[in-house]
Amino acid sequence: MKLKLLYTCIVFTGLTGSVLAQEAVDQAAVQKIREEGLNHSKVMETAFYLTDVAGPRLAGSPGLKRAQNWAVNQLKAWGMSNAKLEPWGKFGKGWEVQKNYAAMTAPYYHAIIAIPKAWTPGTNGPIKSEVVLVKADTVTDLDKYKGKLQGKVVIFDTENTLNRTFKPDAARYTDEELAEMENAEAQRGGGGRRAFDRNNPRFVAMMKARAMRGALNEFLINEKVGLILSQARGTDGTVFTTNGASYADTAKAVAPELETSGEDYLRILRLVKAGQHVEVEADIKTRFITDDMNGYNVVAEIPGTDKTLKDQVIMIGGHLDSWHAATGATDNAAGSAVMMEAMRILKAIDFKPKRTIRIALWSSEEQGLFGSRNYVLNHFGDPATMKLKPEQAKLDAYYNLDNGTGKIRGIYLQGDSAAGPIFKAWFAPFKDLGASTVTIRNTGGTDHQSFDAVGLPGFQFIQDAIDYGARTHHSNQDTYDRLIEDDLKQAATIVASFVYNTSQRTEMIPRKPLPEPRGARR
Amino acid sequence: MKLKLLYTCIVFTGLTGSVLAQEAVDQAAVQKIREEGLNHSKVMETAFYLTDVAGPRLAGSPGLKRAQNWAVNQLKAWGMSNAKLEPWGKFGKGWEVQKNYAAMTAPYYHAIIAIPKAWTPGTNGPIKSEVVLVKADTVTDLDKYKGKLQGKVVIFDTENTLNRTFKPDAARYTDEELAEMENAEAQRGGGGRRAFDRNNPRFVAMMKARAMRGALNEFLINEKVGLILSQARGTDGTVFTTNGASYADTAKAVAPELETSGEDYLRILRLVKAGQHVEVEADIKTRFITDDMNGYNVVAEIPGTDKTLKDQVIMIGGHLDSWHAATGATDNAAGSAVMMEAMRILKAIDFKPKRTIRIALWSSEEQGLFGSRNYVLNHFGDPATMKLKPEQAKLDAYYNLDNGTGKIRGIYLQGDSAAGPIFKAWFAPFKDLGASTVTIRNTGGTDHQSFDAVGLPGFQFIQDAIDYGARTHHSNQDTYDRLIEDDLKQAATIVASFVYNTSQRTEMIPRKPLPEPRGARR
Repeated sequence: MKLKLLYTCIVFTGLTGSVLAQEAVDQAAVQKIREEGLNHSKVMETAFYLTDVAGPRLAGSPGLKRAQNWAVNQLKAWGMSNAKLEPWGKFGKGWEVQKNYAAMTAPYYHAIIAIPKAWTPGTNGPIKSEVVLVKADTVTDLDKYKGKLQGKVVIFDTENTLNRTFKPDAARYTDEELAEMENAEAQRGGGGRRAFDRNNPRFVAMMKARAMRGALNEFLINEKVGLILSQARGTDGTVFTTNGASYADTAKAVAPELETSGEDYLRILRLVKAGQHVEVEADIKTRFITDDMNGYNVVAEIPGTDKTLKDQVIMIGGHLDSWHAATGATDNAAGSAVMMEAMRILKAIDFKPKRTIRIALWSSEEQGLFGSRNYVLNHFGDPATMKLKPEQAKLDAYYNLDNGTGKIRGIYLQGDSAAGPIFKAWFAPFKDLGASTVTIRNTGGTDHQSFDAVGLPGFQFIQDAIDYGARTHHSNQDTYDRLIEDDLKQAATIVASFVYNTSQRTEMIPRKPLPEPRGARR
Repeated sequence: MKLKLLYTCIVFTGLTGSVLAQEAVDQAAVQKIREEGLNHSKVMETAFYLTDVAGPRLAGSPGLKRAQNWAVNQLKAWGMSNAKLEPWGKFGKGWEVQKNYAAMTAPYYHAIIAIPKAWTPGTNGPIKSEVVLVKADTVTDLDKYKGKLQGKVVIFDTENTLNRTFKPDAARYTDEELAEMENAEAQRGGGGRRAFDRNNPRFVAMMKARAMRGALNEFLINEKVGLILSQARGTDGTVFTTNGASYADTAKAVAPELETSGEDYLRILRLVKAGQHVEVEADIKTRFITDDMNGYNVVAEIPGTDKTLKDQVIMIGGHLDSWHAATGATDNAAGSAVMMEAMRILKAIDFKPKRTIRIALWSSEEQGLFGSRNYVLNHFGDPATMKLKPEQAKLDAYYNLDNGTGKIRGIYLQGDSAAGPIFKAWFAPFKDLGASTVTIRNTGGTDHQSFDAVGLPGFQFIQDAIDYGARTHHSNQDTYDRLIEDDLKQAATIVASFVYNTSQRTEMIPRKPLPEPRGARR
């Protein structure tokens, strides 16, 4: 799941249950799907291969390639048609960590928990240096460090502390929270945009910080700094990671930078500020991969069998790429494994759908939904101009899963109120599994938005958060251990059932009116 | 705080409030102490030097020596008398980590979060090897590995998983919990002993596991294994540590062993069990220190000034030694800093006590309360024989702090019911700071037990647990960041006030009857 929503824009309101009775559900099929999904699941095995075996799956990395190839082969082995890697255009450089060692060596030895920022270079071999605190609010503040930083390990000041929390890391939705979502009115669009208003003080501060950051980076590169330590978000050994440079082949050079656990960073900072001599040794090796700069999505199908409906397509998906510090189990091997499992379930019950069912496992989601956006651009249309392609009329619905390991509690209608009663009926057989909430609300930060942007019904399920925010989302702790087997089984079963229902329905899922071209709104 | 209680033995019951009114409290003195302790505190500065600056303070290590020397000098600087390191007898080898690096290098690179077990040797320089899963329930099971483990990294099987918790890591006592403690009856002794009953299945299993562990160790040493990975308790990057060998100078050789974070350990285990080729590289250096095998306690005094009472002594203390993976902030720099701060407060208000006040910062507590036990043996008497020394009659009371960073909520009477009304009165001015609970109960695992064992009034305060159990107690996350400033200030203020009251009281703190000699009970 990508970190930030940029904006939301939903115009419809209201959700009535009056058509509930009209929406038939094939109970026998649901029962078969439940039996296969809950009692013969392979979702944990799939997740194991996508996480432990493939490793970190940063966009463009060998780990992602391993996972993509495994997924294509596995989907083929399960009998899917047209399983392949589909290129979507140019992404940029791949990158992976080949060595990651850092320790404080004075005033005493202490190995550091830290992760290289994505797309940063390694150190110039093993280095050992005193730690220098760089204090600079303005570019002129940097003058005093001129000629003093070559080969040095540098840190920056911060007011951060690691406050204890008395709240649980992990939680599920309460009945009250779900009821509140169910009863919500449609959101008004555009709210998020205000952050980019040139008069917004937060925006001004952000732009100033970004400019200073740029100047600082140039200064540190010119000074041939040895290594930058920056404080990672997280506590107790959990380190949240980000990227430290662009993946573009034209990206500016940056200095090696380690995102350091809060505890280790603040210890060094306190010691340096107290006038203690602190030394750090480090040996960081990273590798850039430039032999293939293209991005790829995994796609595979169960072909439709109805003469008139087989050209219509239901899609399901989630992004397969992850951040680099762990194996992206909850973000988003979970969603990928569930979607693969949903396909497997439908094959296992020997389902011959009327419409075609297609899975897509996206890439470069974390950098800006690039895999799904470009897929939409290549197949359905351009949200900037709203020039649509013929396939756009044939895409029935897209279902996405990318909110961690938590089970499905319902679905976000993304403002598509007419779909509400249909989904409500489809959830009815899953009340015992905790899934029934249909909310008019939209949610963002993931790939269904790419479909929504060209007027296609794109949905993300409501999932229990578990400890997604506190521990796993983009962290070094997003490992297989974080996956909750029962939750993934439940999710795969429900997704398979939704796909079944969508493919057999007389009509396609009703759509919202087409959005305005995005170009015109900017 | 030491991990386990071995047994408890309390015989008195009942706590009446009827003498409350008789116990006078010098309100002006309390006010002065509060002003100094809450508004002019130096407790965080003290904690900083004991943690960040001194580093890990394993018994016998250079880090402990640094902290001890700093404490002696600081206590002198604050004007304490007789500040010194007092030897208590032979401890054993010191040990410290000089390099700690390990990473999985196949099927892909991943740096591992792990801590060498205390008193284990390092690797034979940098090593790199496949990982071998050793499955052995009996000694004969080991045969199949003969000749196959030289230089190899080995792991063992486990059924452990890392389940998510939906409870908060950190908590404070609720009013209900405190009331329950206040209303508790005295505990019956001996309960803990049952675990050592030869007919107890847990004991039998434990002894069998220990025997197998011994045989396994010998086998691995003989096979010249490269490195053992064992799964540490803890999750999310938090690694709880233990010792892997004895500190005794006669200790048997053991293989290098890394206590590995649950996530990293289980990932490797899953991969190996799935038949994947896994390689690990590691470079572990540890150092044994044998130039001085003695143990030392830090002691310092504010001498008594009353002609007849100055030979009587009130002691306060906590252990200064810690485990090695972090800087032992909550276990027990917190207690040490609070006790030092209590002494500082009393000096700062220019208090001239009737009785002598003595602080002791113990060592080797983690290995079996050795510092305090031997101090008691050298000064007060032998619990095995109950042969007492003259100083035993002059020791008024001992107050201990060693339950983390949490503020004081009350005190354990350790069965000394006659002390209850006195302490109740002394807590009265601190109700606004959340401290008022007096419980007849005993608590264990720390140094007040050494005093209690020879019939001396030894008390540990009740403290809020915060995240002591979930995150900090013996873990790699027990750092300065875990300390809660307001809680430490509160604790130091209350301890100073208790010491003030004890030193000025007409009578000494009433004692329980002398315990039976321990030798006779075994």
